[in-house]
Amino acid sequence: MEENVRYDPKALRVFMERVFLHFGIPENDARLATDVLAYSDEHGIDSHGIARLKTYYGLLRAGRINPKPRVKLIREKHAVVQVDGDNGLGLVVGPKCMDIAIEKAGNYGSGSVAVCHTNHFGAAGYYPLMAVKHDFIGMAMTNTSKGVAPFLGKERMLGTNPVAMAFPADKEPTVLMDFASSTVAYGKVEIARRAGKKIPEGWCLDANGDATTAPEKMINGGALLPLGSSREGSGHKGYCLAGMVDILSAVLSGANWGPFAIPFAIDTVGGGRQVGKGIGHFFSAWDVDGFREVGEFKQEMDQWVKTLRASIPLPGEAEVLIPGDPEWRSYRERTKSGIPLQGEVVADLKAIAQETGIAMPHRTS
Amino acid sequence: MEENVRYDPKALRVFMERVFLHFGIPENDARLATDVLAYSDEHGIDSHGIARLKTYYGLLRAGRINPKPRVKLIREKHAVVQVDGDNGLGLVVGPKCMDIAIEKAGNYGSGSVAVCHTNHFGAAGYYPLMAVKHDFIGMAMTNTSKGVAPFLGKERMLGTNPVAMAFPADKEPTVLMDFASSTVAYGKVEIARRAGKKIPEGWCLDANGDATTAPEKMINGGALLPLGSSREGSGHKGYCLAGMVDILSAVLSGANWGPFAIPFAIDTVGGGRQVGKGIGHFFSAWDVDGFREVGEFKQEMDQWVKTLRASIPLPGEAEVLIPGDPEWRSYRERTKSGIPLQGEVVADLKAIAQETGIAMPHRTS
Repeated sequence: MEENVRYDPKALRVFMERVFLHFGIPENDARLATDVLAYSDEHGIDSHGIARLKTYYGLLRAGRINPKPRVKLIREKHAVVQVDGDNGLGLVVGPKCMDIAIEKAGNYGSGSVAVCHTNHFGAAGYYPLMAVKHDFIGMAMTNTSKGVAPFLGKERMLGTNPVAMAFPADKEPTVLMDFASSTVAYGKVEIARRAGKKIPEGWCLDANGDATTAPEKMINGGALLPLGSSREGSGHKGYCLAGMVDILSAVLSGANWGPFAIPFAIDTVGGGRQVGKGIGHFFSAWDVDGFREVGEFKQEMDQWVKTLRASIPLPGEAEVLIPGDPEWRSYRERTKSGIPLQGEVVADLKAIAQETGIAMPHRTS
Repeated sequence: MEENVRYDPKALRVFMERVFLHFGIPENDARLATDVLAYSDEHGIDSHGIARLKTYYGLLRAGRINPKPRVKLIREKHAVVQVDGDNGLGLVVGPKCMDIAIEKAGNYGSGSVAVCHTNHFGAAGYYPLMAVKHDFIGMAMTNTSKGVAPFLGKERMLGTNPVAMAFPADKEPTVLMDFASSTVAYGKVEIARRAGKKIPEGWCLDANGDATTAPEKMINGGALLPLGSSREGSGHKGYCLAGMVDILSAVLSGANWGPFAIPFAIDTVGGGRQVGKGIGHFFSAWDVDGFREVGEFKQEMDQWVKTLRASIPLPGEAEVLIPGDPEWRSYRERTKSGIPLQGEVVADLKAIAQETGIAMPHRTS
């Protein structure tokens, strides 16, 4: 297996920012988009960071994303807003919409933003963490292009539609939940195919709707399964969750919902019929102080974390983790030792460097 | 297997209301509590309706629930409120809190209520449907007493913590999601034990933390698994969902969270250490009109429903269902043919009838 090489996190940020600036994206927006992507790499979410720069690059080069979007409030009622993202990068539209939700929560105790006409926004977990900086509770979700079958269905009808929430604690780290509503992300199936490995039962269907453990059978016209997988595993619950995310993000905002969501990849044929604008996200923030004295809440969160962490692990497992632990561990390790990049990702960056004349980031190993 | 007998839905409502009035519960509150329980029976959620009257009855008789609660707003910031349920029936406190969330959404576009010092509130789906009557989107969740192991843990630390949401449509039925964050409810394990049947893998652990298909091994000191079940099935996602519900419902409201949640059953030993008051619920409502013209949204929801319903089912399956379909089908069938009750439930009702002197409801079959 190919050895990963490590890169300095700051150098990767500089590289990404220059790529965004190359397309005339305003400086503040380029910094914002970079921060969202870097968040993923620095927190161990390899699938959503610089590994996707190639795709954003391709979409910008093809003129399929607006480098200078004017994010517009279309409709508003005190604490809630509908926004048009003007076909900007989700990495830029997303943080601006979360800021609106936070401002609304500051004024009204809670705020929600449904945004259409936007694009892939990176890792969902980035957004609720913006709210936590204000001692607010944050929530973010997005619809994505179709890949998941509905419960008892065989066609790709919904995206992997993730949900993320974060809660501030006092001395303990922030509690962060960030997960797709499918059993696994498409990326895991691709990784298995590249490695020539089988995938576990319960992840995928083939094109006939039969369960499969062969990754290529999902990729060639099959579908991912919703969280819970089967009737016995309560796959209807993952389907419900994916539906909630799709409706809040896309139907409520006026974006393309369900199977009509715009594909993220540049080389994929368009989503066919359009039922709205772009894809959609949904953001909410709640001011903890509106419910309960903030210090008290955060101390109680510390107790919550400690209580679950102290519970007995399964035989053979080291410990019970708290949601967010994997992210904070990666962050500590990677900001010290650098970001490991796969050879394939490095090759993509080199190609971008060559095309744009931007210097490659330097390695730390 | 024992034949179910059917009862007239209205007669069951009269019986339940009289039982609540028997304990001095005010007339309006008795009608409210009855409506919540009857919702479950009339919509096919047998586990959460009159089958639980015995437990509510026992708790009221033992003086463990306040029959005349004064639901108090403790803290408020425009759209968000913390409420103390004064140890009332969740069936009474719940609807009153959802009403507050709806009122807030009417004034501010969204509203959220976190309530502590309350008790089991019946089926979560009842509450978002209250919001849908106003063309709002509704959400409800509650923590419940411990029964579920955290991901990679073996101890019961969290409840089955359900989430429900509902979305108004135009000509199509309301879309309703209502599901627990565990793979299955405890009730399903009990049913298997009574029937002497094995349970599927992925539902439960035994007291040692090993996977088990023997229901009695879960019941005797084992635990339910979070949605997703295993590492391969992404059980960490069900754990995340259960954690979100627990924190919003109980930590934010000042209720007993995690393993400290007050047990529902009368014959269970108390929750031990108290870290708050009662259990907690969390309700939110969003005014669709704050985001998008309501008629347009509802017509788009119709399209959403039709599109998913028209997708191809798995081999051997009749159709792809829309979340809420099972409830609406049960409703049509049961309001015509009566509510089927198990012999055990009928025996419980007879015992209550005898003790209180309230006449048994009449059968329809």
